[in-house]
Amino acid sequence: MLDRGLFIVFEGGDRVGKSTQVRALAAALELSGIDHVITFEPGDTAAGSQVRQLLLDPESDLDDRCETLLYAADKAQHVTRVVLPALAAGKVVVSDRYVDSMLAYQGSGRGLDGGTLAALADWATGGLRPDLTVVLDIEPAHAVAQARDLDRLEQAGTDFHARVRESFLAQAAADPDRYLVLPALVSVRDTAARIREAVGGLLGRELVVPELSEPGRRHG
Amino acid sequence: MLDRGLFIVFEGGDRVGKSTQVRALAAALELSGIDHVITFEPGDTAAGSQVRQLLLDPESDLDDRCETLLYAADKAQHVTRVVLPALAAGKVVVSDRYVDSMLAYQGSGRGLDGGTLAALADWATGGLRPDLTVVLDIEPAHAVAQARDLDRLEQAGTDFHARVRESFLAQAAADPDRYLVLPALVSVRDTAARIREAVGGLLGRELVVPELSEPGRRHG
Repeated sequence: MLDRGLFIVFEGGDRVGKSTQVRALAAALELSGIDHVITFEPGDTAAGSQVRQLLLDPESDLDDRCETLLYAADKAQHVTRVVLPALAAGKVVVSDRYVDSMLAYQGSGRGLDGGTLAALADWATGGLRPDLTVVLDIEPAHAVAQARDLDRLEQAGTDFHARVRESFLAQAAADPDRYLVLPALVSVRDTAARIREAVGGLLGRELVVPELSEPGRRHG
Repeated sequence: MLDRGLFIVFEGGDRVGKSTQVRALAAALELSGIDHVITFEPGDTAAGSQVRQLLLDPESDLDDRCETLLYAADKAQHVTRVVLPALAAGKVVVSDRYVDSMLAYQGSGRGLDGGTLAALADWATGGLRPDLTVVLDIEPAHAVAQARDLDRLEQAGTDFHARVRESFLAQAAADPDRYLVLPALVSVRDTAARIREAVGGLLGRELVVPELSEPGRRHG
């Protein structure tokens, strides 16, 4: 279909509605008859799912560099086993999180050197960049207030989340043509429409509008 | 006891007698009343043991870079949680494998760039270098002939093991003062004596000679 596929990534804090918007885009691609793969990081390979368990378990007591290297390992496996084969087959690949999350959480959040992390991510992924990254932006205080079952990363507090948010926004600002920054916690339908429009623009065609329910305060 | 402890590493191919010599050195340190920690890579932390399972499982189907990053993640956790605290307490730390194995197996063996891997290992370990690395050297053909239950790494064949061996020898040759290269498959007692002598030299005292059985063709 496409010569080399299209790689779309969703980024942002936790519980900002990424999953909801990934599903909305998937529904639009499906209705439009466009071959696509919906995926996520960390964990969407057999090896990656075990790495994910380690990463999200509050009992793991991971050193910051160990945590970062586990995320990088998951990326290497994900890119070679899932993303690149689908792109080579001309598909649209939609990933919930990718490199920006590592730069935001382990870099700006944990305070590890951004240049080193960028080089590490580049090596892990073979330099694969998304065609479009959608950042769902939310005030950290809102995100924390929403959270119920806090996992290890989410226990890190409001300052941490503020730094993470700033990193996402800074990464988007540095390469605005490849980013779409949208406010989270507004209408799911309006947000989905703006994402469909951007992806449709890259595909050179209009995407079919799926039926979407408004989940209100529920953001997956 | 010691101001900053002493970090001793055993390297070499599989089944060359590393475990036997680690135990022999541990016995000598114990009899000499020297505080020590015996450890290994990959896997000697809670998180590391899960990483080790992934690494050694032939079903994991790991991409080379994913494999490398998992080894690096294990190192970061191992150094911060096990090695550095013991060294800070003035102990002798004896590790079965460390950075040289990654450079040998994933670098020379798998063909990943050595400079990149060295930088990765340096970042993962915070630049911690052993005071002494003992390389137990064996002809790859002998090592493969001995092996019974081949795990994933060991299935890689004789060429692979020849490159791995050359890497261990080259790393030793580049920094001869910090390496002791000994032929494997010779007398366990003679080899243990040479290692005791080298470690005793670094500690500034003679180590007590433990009772050692000659396991003959069994090399752990």
